[in-house]
Amino acid sequence: MATDTPPVAIIMGSRSDWPTMKHAADALDRLGVAWDARVVSAHRTPKRLFDFATGARAAGYKIIIAGAGGAAHLPGMAASMTELPVLGVPVQSKALKGLDSLLSIVQMPGGVPVATLAVGEPGAKNAGILAAQILALSDTVLAGRLTAFREAQTEAVHESVED
Amino acid sequence: MATDTPPVAIIMGSRSDWPTMKHAADALDRLGVAWDARVVSAHRTPKRLFDFATGARAAGYKIIIAGAGGAAHLPGMAASMTELPVLGVPVQSKALKGLDSLLSIVQMPGGVPVATLAVGEPGAKNAGILAAQILALSDTVLAGRLTAFREAQTEAVHESVED
Amino acid sequence: MATDTPPVAIIMGSRSDWPTMKHAADALDRLGVAWDARVVSAHRTPKRLFDFATGARAAGYKIIIAGAGGAAHLPGMAASMTELPVLGVPVQSKALKGLDSLLSIVQMPGGVPVATLAVGEPGAKNAGILAAQILALSDTVLAGRLTAFREAQTEAVHESVED
Amino acid sequence: MATDTPPVAIIMGSRSDWPTMKHAADALDRLGVAWDARVVSAHRTPKRLFDFATGARAAGYKIIIAGAGGAAHLPGMAASMTELPVLGVPVQSKALKGLDSLLSIVQMPGGVPVATLAVGEPGAKNAGILAAQILALSDTVLAGRLTAFREAQTEAVHESVED
Amino acid sequence: MATDTPPVAIIMGSRSDWPTMKHAADALDRLGVAWDARVVSAHRTPKRLFDFATGARAAGYKIIIAGAGGAAHLPGMAASMTELPVLGVPVQSKALKGLDSLLSIVQMPGGVPVATLAVGEPGAKNAGILAAQILALSDTVLAGRLTAFREAQTEAVHESVED
Amino acid sequence: MATDTPPVAIIMGSRSDWPTMKHAADALDRLGVAWDARVVSAHRTPKRLFDFATGARAAGYKIIIAGAGGAAHLPGMAASMTELPVLGVPVQSKALKGLDSLLSIVQMPGGVPVATLAVGEPGAKNAGILAAQILALSDTVLAGRLTAFREAQTEAVHESVED
Amino acid sequence: MATDTPPVAIIMGSRSDWPTMKHAADALDRLGVAWDARVVSAHRTPKRLFDFATGARAAGYKIIIAGAGGAAHLPGMAASMTELPVLGVPVQSKALKGLDSLLSIVQMPGGVPVATLAVGEPGAKNAGILAAQILALSDTVLAGRLTAFREAQTEAVHESVED
Amino acid sequence: MATDTPPVAIIMGSRSDWPTMKHAADALDRLGVAWDARVVSAHRTPKRLFDFATGARAAGYKIIIAGAGGAAHLPGMAASMTELPVLGVPVQSKALKGLDSLLSIVQMPGGVPVATLAVGEPGAKNAGILAAQILALSDTVLAGRLTAFREAQTEAVHESVED
Repeated sequence: MATDTPPVAIIMGSRSDWPTMKHAADALDRLGVAWDARVVSAHRTPKRLFDFATGARAAGYKIIIAGAGGAAHLPGMAASMTELPVLGVPVQSKALKGLDSLLSIVQMPGGVPVATLAVGEPGAKNAGILAAQILALSDTVLAGRLTAFREAQTEAVHESVED
Repeated sequence: MATDTPPVAIIMGSRSDWPTMKHAADALDRLGVAWDARVVSAHRTPKRLFDFATGARAAGYKIIIAGAGGAAHLPGMAASMTELPVLGVPVQSKALKGLDSLLSIVQMPGGVPVATLAVGEPGAKNAGILAAQILALSDTVLAGRLTAFREAQTEAVHESVED
Repeated sequence: MATDTPPVAIIMGSRSDWPTMKHAADALDRLGVAWDARVVSAHRTPKRLFDFATGARAAGYKIIIAGAGGAAHLPGMAASMTELPVLGVPVQSKALKGLDSLLSIVQMPGGVPVATLAVGEPGAKNAGILAAQILALSDTVLAGRLTAFREAQTEAVHESVED
Repeated sequence: MATDTPPVAIIMGSRSDWPTMKHAADALDRLGVAWDARVVSAHRTPKRLFDFATGARAAGYKIIIAGAGGAAHLPGMAASMTELPVLGVPVQSKALKGLDSLLSIVQMPGGVPVATLAVGEPGAKNAGILAAQILALSDTVLAGRLTAFREAQTEAVHESVED
Repeated sequence: MATDTPPVAIIMGSRSDWPTMKHAADALDRLGVAWDARVVSAHRTPKRLFDFATGARAAGYKIIIAGAGGAAHLPGMAASMTELPVLGVPVQSKALKGLDSLLSIVQMPGGVPVATLAVGEPGAKNAGILAAQILALSDTVLAGRLTAFREAQTEAVHESVED
Repeated sequence: MATDTPPVAIIMGSRSDWPTMKHAADALDRLGVAWDARVVSAHRTPKRLFDFATGARAAGYKIIIAGAGGAAHLPGMAASMTELPVLGVPVQSKALKGLDSLLSIVQMPGGVPVATLAVGEPGAKNAGILAAQILALSDTVLAGRLTAFREAQTEAVHESVED
Repeated sequence: MATDTPPVAIIMGSRSDWPTMKHAADALDRLGVAWDARVVSAHRTPKRLFDFATGARAAGYKIIIAGAGGAAHLPGMAASMTELPVLGVPVQSKALKGLDSLLSIVQMPGGVPVATLAVGEPGAKNAGILAAQILALSDTVLAGRLTAFREAQTEAVHESVED
Repeated sequence: MATDTPPVAIIMGSRSDWPTMKHAADALDRLGVAWDARVVSAHRTPKRLFDFATGARAAGYKIIIAGAGGAAHLPGMAASMTELPVLGVPVQSKALKGLDSLLSIVQMPGGVPVATLAVGEPGAKNAGILAAQILALSDTVLAGRLTAFREAQTEAVHESVED
């Protein structure tokens, strides 16, 4: 296992998904979880996907966050080639507004799960948080940071409806 | 190239898709086009898919008909690994009635087409006919059978609304 | 922490959800992961939900699998009260076929993730498998069982389309 | 019971819902019904929601108007913890345009009703009017104001299609 | 005002809606709230609707529960002709499964609210409960019955997932 | 019968529908069919609707074009009170893009038809043309104008894809 | 013009549509309007459609009722080849429940209207009634029958919800 | 057969579809496949469609790419009148965002296939590529260009998520 592999790999179908998926990276940064990110297109670079997904566990990754839009096959195909948890983020598509992305990711057949989050930025942010929640199961320091994050999040919700 | 490879390969994500996909085979039979069929699950047998799709052209296939339901990744992933035309059939799913299958297959990104047919049996039958239409572009005998098939189809539409 | 708390808690909004959610329990059984199951209705027993969710981590649970249908608030509300990973299963509803269940579970706002699976039985089964994948990150014996499970699953996909 | 508690409490999941929910407050103002408004996030402040909803009746509120978007759990969860009528307003969401908000609010299981209004501003305005209609059942002065409001509304509909 | 008018009128577009709407009546019975029920078709008996709705308040009704399916205009049209609260129940339709009923009822324009419940039986039951919640605002005996009903409902949710 | 009543009445739920419905008027103008237009809100002016629809035939109208959005009850309610043909135009709504308008208008129960056109401007234009087609059944001069209109329309479709 | 041509032609894409479309014929029978019916498949017999539609007016028809399901092109294509009013009935499809039929029929572009009715049997019945309403504009005897039909329909709506 | 007929005909329902359909032409240009393009409206120029489609094969075309929006009948009607493969591109519509276009094109009945691509520009581009894939079955030079195109496409997917 590479000693410098971060626990979380963020993959996405296209560079144009990065403005959405960056919210996963930002959440991981805030929670002190290392990550790397790369473009892996299920459709345009299937060999890269095959190599990445089959080798991800041996490479030292713990969790894969995968974002894609439209006929979004990246999360499910990654999940088919690794036993690592795969978190899927439906990127909002142009015509059908992400409904296609969502159904393509979440409706996996029995046997190969993808943990699906909400369409777009909230889903990407939550993929980062969920990755941290999973890693915190065996990392009490991270668990403490998560607790603090959640408390801060709660405190930031001011009752007042106006500034 | 194997001399006994039929021009059309029918693949499907699960044996439970065969009652639907059999209509593709029946249409090919009727038009005198050879085929073989096998179960290739994008999610449960990704290596089998990789091997099949990357080798399909060298094996002598001309066209791939791929059927799948739910988060239906088989047609698109096959298309990502071959330059052969891939015809996708959305198999009707239980909860969402095939809308998930349809969107997962048809909404492919620019660069990797899947020729998508209707949900369920009509789509499977039409995949068989479309395969024949494609092959008939360079096979005048098949073109003649297609013409006869279409004429017979037209003649079979009786005007009377009752027997 | 209670020494006899299993790592996975399965909760559901109604006893009528058990025929669906039992597939999560069956998957966990097959993978040798202990679980318990109970009915916790977000709407009819909100206090029970509050007590369960806020105490789940201290009780020793690692993962919560929550299934519900219609305006399915159970997974998201459990997630709002614990830092444990919550896996949500949309149970198929009568009129709208689970589209309401799916959107109610998956469209969580940024800050509180629910790892959403497919509608109905495949989703319940996958929630069990995903729970095992998460626990296997720090349990090499379980990781071995998962590998064997996945290999057996792959081998069980016979190429032949008919018996 | 606090003597200065207004009859209507307006709660919403996020301060960003206020531009929508303000239309409920405006309608109440026009009809001379007092209200207060606060942010109560079902997901980020579940304890605040628990405290508010379980205490709302004792605090002297008569009706709760709750607005939320996406996986909109606030109205239903408030309804689960009080016997006061809860009026739910689906706030328009970004990707799915409020369809998720609507289904998450309206599809409540038998036993715990949420009176659901239209998506967005018309729904918020109508929540205010509906609250007044309910209160007017035992307030003849308010009933008179409602009658006048409705008459004015009718009169304001000029037949001419252009100015 | 007729002294024998019950507080709740249940109206529906067709006698075929009664198996659904009966659940509203059953809930009212259980909570000790009197009601009557009749068929009033917005489309086939518009005059009956006009007469009923414009006269409902003077007749002594407090609340109208209206159920209809398809292009479900009954709740909204009743609401347009009375200041009484109108609770709308979308009856499940054949082809579109109640999505048409739901949207036809809930998407009322600003100015004329309909308190919309879930599609089908759960919605009808909840209309009955909601009517009682509204009436209980000025009826402490009924409020007590509602509290007992809700407590019994909570207690009836056994934790065990199997008998 | 008023001697100056035009054959076509255009009604709409709100003045804000006029930019859409004006396309019906423009089509009628082009075909030389007289019309008048007014705002008749099913929900805010039910009495005006009642009076208009029940009196439309006696007033001398032949056809009613009715446009509305959201829970669009105007066309169906007009149809319930007249035996004149009612043509319904679903005006595009804000959140749900006219899907609510369309289903509210088209899904009429057996017995009371509304001739429904497409969502938005094309539907409004087509309502005008359809009205002319109906009137032309007993007006050969108008039939001639329609023929000329259709021929001009056909001729205006240049084959070239660019100017 | 053929002297024995009935005023209404009912066409449908397949003999399997007749159980639905028969409700149009039944309604016409009840109102004393003559009709004939035939199968004309837009896709399998385009020449028959072309011949029928271009010749329908000269043949003496006044109105065309066209029913079809799925990618339902028959009503719109008939409308493109005649100036007679075309009434479209979306026949319920298997997988998508008639939503595809409805959108394929109703969303016609500006210039070529199809008067669309509800999905399935109610729509077919209403097509028959609408045809009679159109013909009654210049047939006072038929207008009288329509008035009687509508009155009988109104009277048949008993107020009682049970037998 | 005209010796100068290109192998691919691009047809579209309106000149306004050209900005979408141009992506098909661009893909064909890049792959060195000749094409021509014209506006053929199924609804406004049915005779032109009839003449074009019935004569396309004799004219020397091999493949027809047809794009249309809304009630998109052009691809299916062309397919009904030729045995050439027809590739259908759903052009994004205004109100319903192309869902109507997609369902109108893809849900063809058994017997008359349309190879349907994604909604909008990606679908148009893919129609061009798919046409080349089909032609390449009997053109090894084109097959070589396709291989190069696909390799270049793969190489253009840089792993880096940012420039």
